Amino acid sequence: MSTGDEVAQPKRTGRRPGGADTRRTVLEAARAEFAARGYEKASMRAIARAAGVDAALLHHYFGTKDQLFLAALELPVDPRAVVERALAGDPAGVGGRVADFVLDLWEQPGVLDRLLALIRAAATTEQVAALMRGFVTAELIGRIAAALEVERPELRAELMFSQIVGLAMARYVVRIEPLASAPREELHPLLARTFQNYLVTP
Amino acid sequence: MSTGDEVAQPKRTGRRPGGADTRRTVLEAARAEFAARGYEKASMRAIARAAGVDAALLHHYFGTKDQLFLAALELPVDPRAVVERALAGDPAGVGGRVADFVLDLWEQPGVLDRLLALIRAAATTEQVAALMRGFVTAELIGRIAAALEVERPELRAELMFSQIVGLAMARYVVRIEPLASAPREELHPLLARTFQNYLVTP
Repeated sequence: MSTGDEVAQPKRTGRRPGGADTRRTVLEAARAEFAARGYEKASMRAIARAAGVDAALLHHYFGTKDQLFLAALELPVDPRAVVERALAGDPAGVGGRVADFVLDLWEQPGVLDRLLALIRAAATTEQVAALMRGFVTAELIGRIAAALEVERPELRAELMFSQIVGLAMARYVVRIEPLASAPREELHPLLARTFQNYLVTP
Repeated sequence: MSTGDEVAQPKRTGRRPGGADTRRTVLEAARAEFAARGYEKASMRAIARAAGVDAALLHHYFGTKDQLFLAALELPVDPRAVVERALAGDPAGVGGRVADFVLDLWEQPGVLDRLLALIRAAATTEQVAALMRGFVTAELIGRIAAALEVERPELRAELMFSQIVGLAMARYVVRIEPLASAPREELHPLLARTFQNYLVTP
């Protein structure tokens, strides 16, 4: 086992001199393993090995595989928590709350670049597509579908996902105008209606 | 000028021995020029030069730049003709007609591969994104918007475009289930409602 966060006074080997570097090494190893093997097949043990840290300590510091995946994405929010917040409360406002989340998310520092990198990689690399597929299916769609009271709830949750990905592509990658520059208040009602229809309207 | 379609009895130089090869050479030169310079800046003259054919004959055989772009994509339908058909007729059925078109399009031989190649390239290469942006803006959005009777018609047409791109990503690239395998009759009413709301509902 190498030095790292878990060692009170890390031996400075030059490779992993301290806490912040260990964290970076682990997240890089995680991104490489997730990209190479996909979400479902990625192994915490292999990530620990690649990062040169103890598997038990990896779990201690980064939690379960889904928590490590989210940490590796370095999003400012946990999409599962957001989903739960959006689906709780008045059903008439679900679409609006999802639109709030989607429109806020890209504005947060560093998020746009990381999400676009993920979408670009998923578009061109089957392993990243598999990673996104595994995570979205295992961690998001089931959770959303369980809270819906419509028929075919998974399909509807995935159509919502497709609109979010397509919005990112059209607004931030292809950047067609006026969509790319449209202010939040013009987009919000139109997106809210789409999300409401997918998630709530029979 | 080289041999080609326009020459009754082409000299067989080995490089461009006949009609089919000339066509392929021109379409390849066009794809390269569109990818390198984007739709707006791409030059018919440069394409003719790269393909080794006369510019006037290029126009004669392939028409205007937008026609050559569509030919280079090798789609089985002209999206502008489809758009005009979908927008004509009963406004209450616009969403359903667009959903018909979108769901039919991918099923046609060879279309899925070419459109996914275009989307993948646009996701990763700014020049291809510029090409898509230029063509969609110049040839599709204005045409659709002119036929709409809602406020902000361009924005609404582009949201429709974003849903189509996102559907392609989620269904054919990321391939999340059950969306990837969902039969047409399950998707159609949900998509039709989204398109109807974007294009028609105030």
